Amino acid sequence: MERRQRALDIARRAGAEAVLASTPASVAWLTGFAAEIDSGPSPFGLPPLALLAADDAPVLIVSDDDAEGAAATGCEVRSYRGFSVEPLDAVGGASRALVEVAGGRRVAVEAGSLPAALAAGLDWVDAGAELASARAVKDPDELALIRAAIELCDVGQREARRHAEPGLTELELWARVRGGIESAAGARTPILADLVAGPRTAATGGAPEGRTMAAGELVLCDLVPRRTGYWGDSCATFALEEPSAVARENHRRASDRLAQILDAVRPGVVAGDLDALARDGLDYPHHSGHGLGCDWHEEPRIVPGSETVLEAGMVVAFEPGCYEHGEGVRVEQVVLVTADGCEVLSGHGLEL
Amino acid sequence: MERRQRALDIARRAGAEAVLASTPASVAWLTGFAAEIDSGPSPFGLPPLALLAADDAPVLIVSDDDAEGAAATGCEVRSYRGFSVEPLDAVGGASRALVEVAGGRRVAVEAGSLPAALAAGLDWVDAGAELASARAVKDPDELALIRAAIELCDVGQREARRHAEPGLTELELWARVRGGIESAAGARTPILADLVAGPRTAATGGAPEGRTMAAGELVLCDLVPRRTGYWGDSCATFALEEPSAVARENHRRASDRLAQILDAVRPGVVAGDLDALARDGLDYPHHSGHGLGCDWHEEPRIVPGSETVLEAGMVVAFEPGCYEHGEGVRVEQVVLVTADGCEVLSGHGLEL
Repeated sequence: MERRQRALDIARRAGAEAVLASTPASVAWLTGFAAEIDSGPSPFGLPPLALLAADDAPVLIVSDDDAEGAAATGCEVRSYRGFSVEPLDAVGGASRALVEVAGGRRVAVEAGSLPAALAAGLDWVDAGAELASARAVKDPDELALIRAAIELCDVGQREARRHAEPGLTELELWARVRGGIESAAGARTPILADLVAGPRTAATGGAPEGRTMAAGELVLCDLVPRRTGYWGDSCATFALEEPSAVARENHRRASDRLAQILDAVRPGVVAGDLDALARDGLDYPHHSGHGLGCDWHEEPRIVPGSETVLEAGMVVAFEPGCYEHGEGVRVEQVVLVTADGCEVLSGHGLEL
Repeated sequence: MERRQRALDIARRAGAEAVLASTPASVAWLTGFAAEIDSGPSPFGLPPLALLAADDAPVLIVSDDDAEGAAATGCEVRSYRGFSVEPLDAVGGASRALVEVAGGRRVAVEAGSLPAALAAGLDWVDAGAELASARAVKDPDELALIRAAIELCDVGQREARRHAEPGLTELELWARVRGGIESAAGARTPILADLVAGPRTAATGGAPEGRTMAAGELVLCDLVPRRTGYWGDSCATFALEEPSAVARENHRRASDRLAQILDAVRPGVVAGDLDALARDGLDYPHHSGHGLGCDWHEEPRIVPGSETVLEAGMVVAFEPGCYEHGEGVRVEQVVLVTADGCEVLSGHGLEL
């Protein structure tokens, strides 16, 4: 895989012989193993680690609880005791396994996530930022996984429109959206989301709450599910029954900007220039877009002044918004940068 | 608070002047601030840190995105740039804020979670295991939060029985259970869960999947939601329509053991002895119980050979199971150890 070679090159430039991934994103990127991320740390095991010293053979270091899933990736697995009635020692178990696998080599690590107890046994140098940036251009097998994650976005956006109605709370709608996504995935699914109706749309979003939705209100639904280690992203804004004139105008302006950006995307375009094009005539307090893959926000970040140059194989979500006069609208699609433009990967509707 | 004094005592015994919490559990324990834990690491901010140098004044070190919630705890807050269109530098921001707050003091840390990049700027000693054990006896304000979390368990168990029916998939039932819990909480809620029907009950549990449930099958439902930083826990097993004779017998045996344990709980009892009492006549591959609070599994662990002595103020979940002849039953209740016995905090039904 192209990406493993890039990771090793980063290690070499940092004077190291191997890469040690400790973020769920980099572990998934190098090995295909998707760490559990939806209930916080476990007393039985540390988050998985992946050590890459040659471009064809990462070693996954996981607790016994993850050993079967780790082996299914085809990577070599070193496991330590997980769920057990014995005394807890996840840190000791992971630490000993790591020292053996690292074998005294100097390793390029992600120092923003590698626990100090594990770093203590290593000769390390930080390459976290370089590894994160190296994920921007996707390999073909990654594109297939991103497409599958975006299918879950399409399902969720369809469910949102299907079930949204006055009298339901945001949380009741959320339960139906999430239920639809998880049924389609066949598994529990981590999902970041904005799901708000009415006044909170003007504040760009937020988590669903107990507030009851009313006729005429906008629903802003931004769904970011993870499937097999890769994230999808999507946003649509729609009205419960008849939208106001303000909502129509905001929707028209945001949609127009999205169309303009997609028209401009191609290799060689500078991210900061795309950001300026997206904001032309709009005033929103967030990025205009971002890369996604093993993380839900990565390079290329479409933000003011960014000098990142788009390349074929990058996957980018664009999401201009118009939040004026008390009603917020955001529209978002994910695209793959191709040799001469882009392919829209998102399949959800953007109508108001 | 009693617990802050215990944490400082641990630091002093380790030769340090302050405690630095970096797990969500210890941060919640010392400050009341519940870190987001249900979608993995964020590129915009590191997990919150709490530095305690005197027993009345922890400092929370968080990204801007968490600053408002952190301030609501009454703790002092030091924040660094979070969600932004500027270049990403969460590690640098957190690191600089931490160095300033620590002010050159030697700190007792949780080295199994503190990132190496943050530890690099500190004079530190590991006290992670001691801090985790110190959480076992709860302060009165913690008990109120645990009771509130257990109310969510009761809601979820009621929803499971109300909606479970042949023809539904495990995931469809899960969506209703989670939806009920989140509506009762008024917010998205992290939940660990076993929710399986039929053959998988014999394997003690697992995550809900797409399998359709059938009449006569057992449903094993173990719900562990977090509310305001504190976890509840609960398990019940019930039949879809008529249970088999095997299921009845397994349920009788597990329930009998649970009653025996609760009868025996009081200060001074040794955890390993309770474990032996729970397993008498049963053969299950997991613990007989565990403490819970800011973590979902902590001291006192009710496991073979444990020498931990129960004390008043501990909160313990007991969960014997009988998984014989292809149908698994587990029953679980959470109790508070009182001066002369225990009080059952769980309100959910345990009938088959």
